[in-house]
Amino acid sequence: MNYCNQCGGTLEVRVPEGDSLPRHVCERCGAIHYLNPKLVVGCIAEWEGRILLCRRAIEPRHGLWTLPAGFMENGETTAQAAVRETLEEACARIEIGELFSLVNVPHINQVHLFYRGRLIGGSFAPGIESLETALFDENEIPWDELAFRSVTLCLKAYFADRRRGRFVFHEDDLLPPAAY
Amino acid sequence: MNYCNQCGGTLEVRVPEGDSLPRHVCERCGAIHYLNPKLVVGCIAEWEGRILLCRRAIEPRHGLWTLPAGFMENGETTAQAAVRETLEEACARIEIGELFSLVNVPHINQVHLFYRGRLIGGSFAPGIESLETALFDENEIPWDELAFRSVTLCLKAYFADRRRGRFVFHEDDLLPPAAY
Repeated sequence: MNYCNQCGGTLEVRVPEGDSLPRHVCERCGAIHYLNPKLVVGCIAEWEGRILLCRRAIEPRHGLWTLPAGFMENGETTAQAAVRETLEEACARIEIGELFSLVNVPHINQVHLFYRGRLIGGSFAPGIESLETALFDENEIPWDELAFRSVTLCLKAYFADRRRGRFVFHEDDLLPPAAY
Repeated sequence: MNYCNQCGGTLEVRVPEGDSLPRHVCERCGAIHYLNPKLVVGCIAEWEGRILLCRRAIEPRHGLWTLPAGFMENGETTAQAAVRETLEEACARIEIGELFSLVNVPHINQVHLFYRGRLIGGSFAPGIESLETALFDENEIPWDELAFRSVTLCLKAYFADRRRGRFVFHEDDLLPPAAY
């Protein structure tokens, strides 16, 4: 961030009066520009015991598999975001269920939420951001080709809960990947 | 938003290629500036059966009571945000518990999260954004002087769960307040 989006003035980084953290402050109009984490919302959509995954047609992680998920938009609820993303990425309509997991990814300023859901009618197809969409039994999940660690965590917890016959809410924090 | 925070160019509002919603796009450098919901995170901190509330020293809702809560910052987890806000607004250290509720407030582009927690040592005091801090029994909660509907929902669910002897995760959506 270099310029004020209100007046076009130059931004400086300093701790505003009464604040405790450095912020981008406009030298001309004084506007303070905060940066806050973004929500990524998705769905574990089940059909006849199998889970819907999408193979990514975009970066990051092009070619790897993920749950349908994406950035929440202004003006929608978290459940609406999960429904919309599943429609956009997998052309699939879902009956949304309960919130299943929250994964903090603080080093990239994201919070991931995954809902449980059921495919309606069992139909799906790749959306514009997917190369391929498919249903997977637990023993077919491409664990080594999953795009994101939050998806791996979420799916492992989902199958563990399903085996026990009881779904509970899960919360996890991810550290930066080891740099080797 | 009028100007690009990258290059200072003028922004126009249009649907970028491959997108489905109007965005702020820089006419000079082409950067797309997305707007996304913000997370507000707080805590229901209990001490000897009573709940810690703060009377707001800032707008909006100056003078009304709320749970300690505030905007999540980049680089922290949701639980860390709840701990930090409780320290900032009520000078209170807490042992953080489980996530208790998520409240969507789509008309103001916010998602509110409230954790359960316990005060450590039972000490608290007004932080810079609070006029007053106090512990309330269920029958003392100033229901008509609560600052936010999400706090009211959260507290009602909390006391109902506590009476039943079992806390579960709650999700709610708030509509805009009736305009009368």
